[in-house]
Amino acid sequence: MEVKAAVAYSASQPLQIETVDLEGPKAGEVLVEIKASGVCHTDAYTLSGADPEGLFPTILGHEGAGVVVEVGPGVTSLQPGDHVIPLYVPECRQCEYCLSFKTNLCQAIRITQGQGVMPDGTSRFSIGGEKIHHYMGTSTFANYTVVPEIALAKIRPDAPFDKVCYIGCGVTTGIGAVINTAKVEPGANVVVFGLGGIGLNVIQGARMVGANMIVGVDINPNKRALAKKFGMTHFVNPQEVEGDLVAYLVNLTKGGADYSFECIGNVKVMRQALECCHKGWGMSVIVGVAGAGQEISTRPFQLVTGRVWKGTAFGGARGRTDVPKIVDWYMDGKINIDDLITHVMPIEKINDAFDLMHKGESIRSVVTFE
Amino acid sequence: MEVKAAVAYSASQPLQIETVDLEGPKAGEVLVEIKASGVCHTDAYTLSGADPEGLFPTILGHEGAGVVVEVGPGVTSLQPGDHVIPLYVPECRQCEYCLSFKTNLCQAIRITQGQGVMPDGTSRFSIGGEKIHHYMGTSTFANYTVVPEIALAKIRPDAPFDKVCYIGCGVTTGIGAVINTAKVEPGANVVVFGLGGIGLNVIQGARMVGANMIVGVDINPNKRALAKKFGMTHFVNPQEVEGDLVAYLVNLTKGGADYSFECIGNVKVMRQALECCHKGWGMSVIVGVAGAGQEISTRPFQLVTGRVWKGTAFGGARGRTDVPKIVDWYMDGKINIDDLITHVMPIEKINDAFDLMHKGESIRSVVTFE
Repeated sequence: MEVKAAVAYSASQPLQIETVDLEGPKAGEVLVEIKASGVCHTDAYTLSGADPEGLFPTILGHEGAGVVVEVGPGVTSLQPGDHVIPLYVPECRQCEYCLSFKTNLCQAIRITQGQGVMPDGTSRFSIGGEKIHHYMGTSTFANYTVVPEIALAKIRPDAPFDKVCYIGCGVTTGIGAVINTAKVEPGANVVVFGLGGIGLNVIQGARMVGANMIVGVDINPNKRALAKKFGMTHFVNPQEVEGDLVAYLVNLTKGGADYSFECIGNVKVMRQALECCHKGWGMSVIVGVAGAGQEISTRPFQLVTGRVWKGTAFGGARGRTDVPKIVDWYMDGKINIDDLITHVMPIEKINDAFDLMHKGESIRSVVTFE
Repeated sequence: MEVKAAVAYSASQPLQIETVDLEGPKAGEVLVEIKASGVCHTDAYTLSGADPEGLFPTILGHEGAGVVVEVGPGVTSLQPGDHVIPLYVPECRQCEYCLSFKTNLCQAIRITQGQGVMPDGTSRFSIGGEKIHHYMGTSTFANYTVVPEIALAKIRPDAPFDKVCYIGCGVTTGIGAVINTAKVEPGANVVVFGLGGIGLNVIQGARMVGANMIVGVDINPNKRALAKKFGMTHFVNPQEVEGDLVAYLVNLTKGGADYSFECIGNVKVMRQALECCHKGWGMSVIVGVAGAGQEISTRPFQLVTGRVWKGTAFGGARGRTDVPKIVDWYMDGKINIDDLITHVMPIEKINDAFDLMHKGESIRSVVTFE
């Protein structure tokens, strides 16, 4: 079938809206009509050419929501009409990782996903017979896409696509870092570095689980108002702190953060996030993605005296199990997504979404296909 | 009273056996007759002058066992005749740290302990009116010492002093790292870097909790036989591995260590210990003490893909609660201490114990006062 997609032909070039050929779903695969897709920093990272695993040409997009149109042979958990969110971290419930109950990093289709193809080693997308790569197993910058059954979370039918698409990445990453990775408990003091789309979701996750102090750290004072709306109790602008930021945060939290979250991708900030943690038990979670080859460092004394250094991917969430719950939380008013989606535009305007992101003018832009 | 002690007058000088004046216990303090004391690398580290917090003159020793002789005012949990192990990490059961149930790092007397004095700010030891510092709150290289009540674990009276003194540091650090800090579960694959007095206790801790593979890593092939006796299932000599040690260990453990332990104090090995952990859930625990100012580093990707970096002090043990249990385990034959104590000598020969350690000829030397 012919579908409409924003194609990334090469690094650092604007996406081009094209009519693309899409093959139907093979065994274990599902054809999904994408209704809306968020535009995330990770898409921009790959498009920039800095992602060492980036492949071109490709159809980017990993934060979508849509409707099942057709299922391939052997698909049992979904049927046409089901509303779904594609998952760049699948959940096969069969592999060593899924069965460990210690991680969400299902490995069932990791290799082919990294190669930009479906699990059988081929792509469903092409133009004029030339192969177009899939991206993160999702390729949601197309009005139709093919996704493995194990990489689709079935969600309730009354959830609005142009909001809950954000649960496909940013919302779940931030809230999941709090509840799955750090397991923040009521009364804890939390410090969040970086008040972008991920950091704000960390903040509302911390509020949801009953954290005490929720300290937001950002060099942009314009972030303050929205972060307060999401639950931030204290704002710290490092450029206004005299002396050492870590000492300031330890003092502010009366001994250090019980939990800290780095939501920027800056290795120096990752160190600050660890070292502002409370002696004896403070846990720091790396959420941001650092540039290729960059390293974190600290004195081992920081760990020997009880701090713990962790990271998280997709918020430690098991997508098929957890994403539908987070959709429910949104529909129940437990979490706020609407205020994070600052721009909605048709897919034809997708390059504007990248521009808004690079200028820092959007929290999240969503493209639609109507 | 006059007591016999090995005094460290200054860095890098041999200890001198002296008659030292010891004041009796003040409020909350206990006079203990030390019967035996292990000689640990930490004593040697401070004696070397490399410890930035080292104070001289002092009476070293922090791995002792003995008998209560006299209790000061207000002491309620101990009485003369009780057998005890002094604790360089106390357990007051009152401070924020003890009550957090997240750490063993009781802070009740930390500041004065670091200053080499009792909680009232004064020392009980002197020679000719000149103050001698306490060390780690224990100073077990003396046949009598004064220790705060909260820094004494009461143990069963039938346990031999010249064996269970080792539970005052090395045994508890190693076994506790396994059971308290890492919480190794049955069937886990464990990699232990450094097969000295700590590493061997990590190994027997891993065996006790039912670990599957217990891989020992050491450049000294002579460590192999004893480590096997303690439960090591695989020995790896990095000097005999062709290519990358981390890749070798990941392959050997079929995906990486579920838990790894660095028991050397080498920051490069700490990185290897983290990176040989299993993607998704592997946890690395730093047990060794690095030189002042040295730093660990890695790519944050290691943490984002699920590895956890932790450290431990005194094996995460709450001394008054946990040390008596470990003494029971020894008396019940669950753990082996006898084979780790390679040398026993009178206090007068204590400098020989340091020599044996530096030459790598001892696992643990114990000095006695009979």
